[in-house]
Amino acid sequence: MIDALIEKIKATDNPSVVGIDTDISYLPQKMAEHANTPEDAAKYILDFNCRIIDKIYKIVPAIKVQVAYYEMLGVEGFATFSETIKYARKRGMLAIADVKRNDIGATATAYSKAYFSGVKMTKSFPAPFDSDFITVNGYLGIDGILPFINDCKAFNRGIFVLVKTSNPSSSQLQDLKLQDGRTVFEAVAGLVNEWGRGSIGKYGYNDVGAVVGATHPQEAGILRKLMPNTFFLVPGYGAQGGTANDLRPCFDSKGGGAIVNSSRAIICAYKSEKYKGLEFDEAAYRASIDMQSDINKVIR
Amino acid sequence: MIDALIEKIKATDNPSVVGIDTDISYLPQKMAEHANTPEDAAKYILDFNCRIIDKIYKIVPAIKVQVAYYEMLGVEGFATFSETIKYARKRGMLAIADVKRNDIGATATAYSKAYFSGVKMTKSFPAPFDSDFITVNGYLGIDGILPFINDCKAFNRGIFVLVKTSNPSSSQLQDLKLQDGRTVFEAVAGLVNEWGRGSIGKYGYNDVGAVVGATHPQEAGILRKLMPNTFFLVPGYGAQGGTANDLRPCFDSKGGGAIVNSSRAIICAYKSEKYKGLEFDEAAYRASIDMQSDINKVIR
Repeated sequence: MIDALIEKIKATDNPSVVGIDTDISYLPQKMAEHANTPEDAAKYILDFNCRIIDKIYKIVPAIKVQVAYYEMLGVEGFATFSETIKYARKRGMLAIADVKRNDIGATATAYSKAYFSGVKMTKSFPAPFDSDFITVNGYLGIDGILPFINDCKAFNRGIFVLVKTSNPSSSQLQDLKLQDGRTVFEAVAGLVNEWGRGSIGKYGYNDVGAVVGATHPQEAGILRKLMPNTFFLVPGYGAQGGTANDLRPCFDSKGGGAIVNSSRAIICAYKSEKYKGLEFDEAAYRASIDMQSDINKVIR
Repeated sequence: MIDALIEKIKATDNPSVVGIDTDISYLPQKMAEHANTPEDAAKYILDFNCRIIDKIYKIVPAIKVQVAYYEMLGVEGFATFSETIKYARKRGMLAIADVKRNDIGATATAYSKAYFSGVKMTKSFPAPFDSDFITVNGYLGIDGILPFINDCKAFNRGIFVLVKTSNPSSSQLQDLKLQDGRTVFEAVAGLVNEWGRGSIGKYGYNDVGAVVGATHPQEAGILRKLMPNTFFLVPGYGAQGGTANDLRPCFDSKGGGAIVNSSRAIICAYKSEKYKGLEFDEAAYRASIDMQSDINKVIR
């Protein structure tokens, strides 16, 4: 699956992903005023999401959908989560379900059914939240990762494992020093390297990617060297404070090997001074183009 | 909330929790044969869960519901997940949503709305998956934990943070040695200690609990001493291989401070030699009583 993502990035000349993490407060007034219950909000959010996808699908290779914003709306929220992913994929985009799943082997197998392999009963049913990639947390080690890796091979999918996250307190555990001189996040990087070994594609990257925050450029540089075959999903650019220059170390010498996420800065662009007066979807489109050129400037 | 759990354990004289992690394959033949689609399976699983709850609610203080088994059934699965939790709480049981959530602060706030605080729109709506406790993963540090801790105080809830998990590969990351001599899981224990400091209840335990696997009795003993005010949720007993004797180190000297989970060994008891011929709910009831006496024998 990583090959498909890389090809999509090449085709659009755009190593970025738009985070469709739609909080109720992101809806424009004229939609928000009709969304008085979580059920209604879920419907208007789906409409909002689809309109953004309609505008960006030709120029952006993928969306990332953060499940938490849908989960808080209950069952209807999950319907919108699922429909948003379906809609983007129908439009030819790739979809990353940002769910950060982590558990023991038997449970990871159940999760993999939800996102990759689907459920076998008297006949087979597709995964209800069928996605090209999901994010996972490696704290439990390989047991909880292997079911996903097996399904990545069988169903042409990929995962991104949390290595160095973009938030300020990521240092609390991830930066602790081990006796062998590595940090905890470097040890996780070592595991991710190992886990990806069996799935290297034609561009030198494999199906077991890493989440590496844009807010830690120095650590990103270390990780880029430590994990030469690992594709990076890079959050933290834009609203979280990462700048284009901070992104450089995440990419390889040819400007490949990473995809940068921006959520609020794109889908709420219509609220900012720069895109003022534009419809939310048009603002998202313009902000996507600006992000694309902002990134491409530094990686070339 | 930890006080309520402790009082419920005292009232039932039962420091155990039944894991309602109902895979389709757990349904008895006469239910399974009608469950030909994920939607139907979700309905029969809800029926299965409620019948087990009806049998055990007087003798077992809490259920733990592993979301993965519902997620793979899609939106209808989440409805069953929600209804199972609601039904158990209506019957007076406490409910632990085993969701192992982990993310940056803004996202953790959204998750906390889903399980604890609910959504505020023109009016307030209760959390769609309203639970007494959830499990979380601390890899991102305090940013991703604080929103839950704040809501634990405001809404009388609790969390259990993964410290030392029950699965074989938990050692891969969790047992790595730090330069200060501690292991990674001991460092996480230190953080959990810190995070719970503000919420110590009348029995000496606080609202920030820890997940400590029954399969690692030696580590559990170390953790019990390191975290004197932290309540343990203990998976891994029964089907995963942990024995009653392995549980002893999880408890304090008075036989308190921990609650032990068993899932398959209870809800699939009807499939085992020991409870053969019994209806699934009656078998779950008997297995719950046997588990209770098995645990109580070693902690007194």
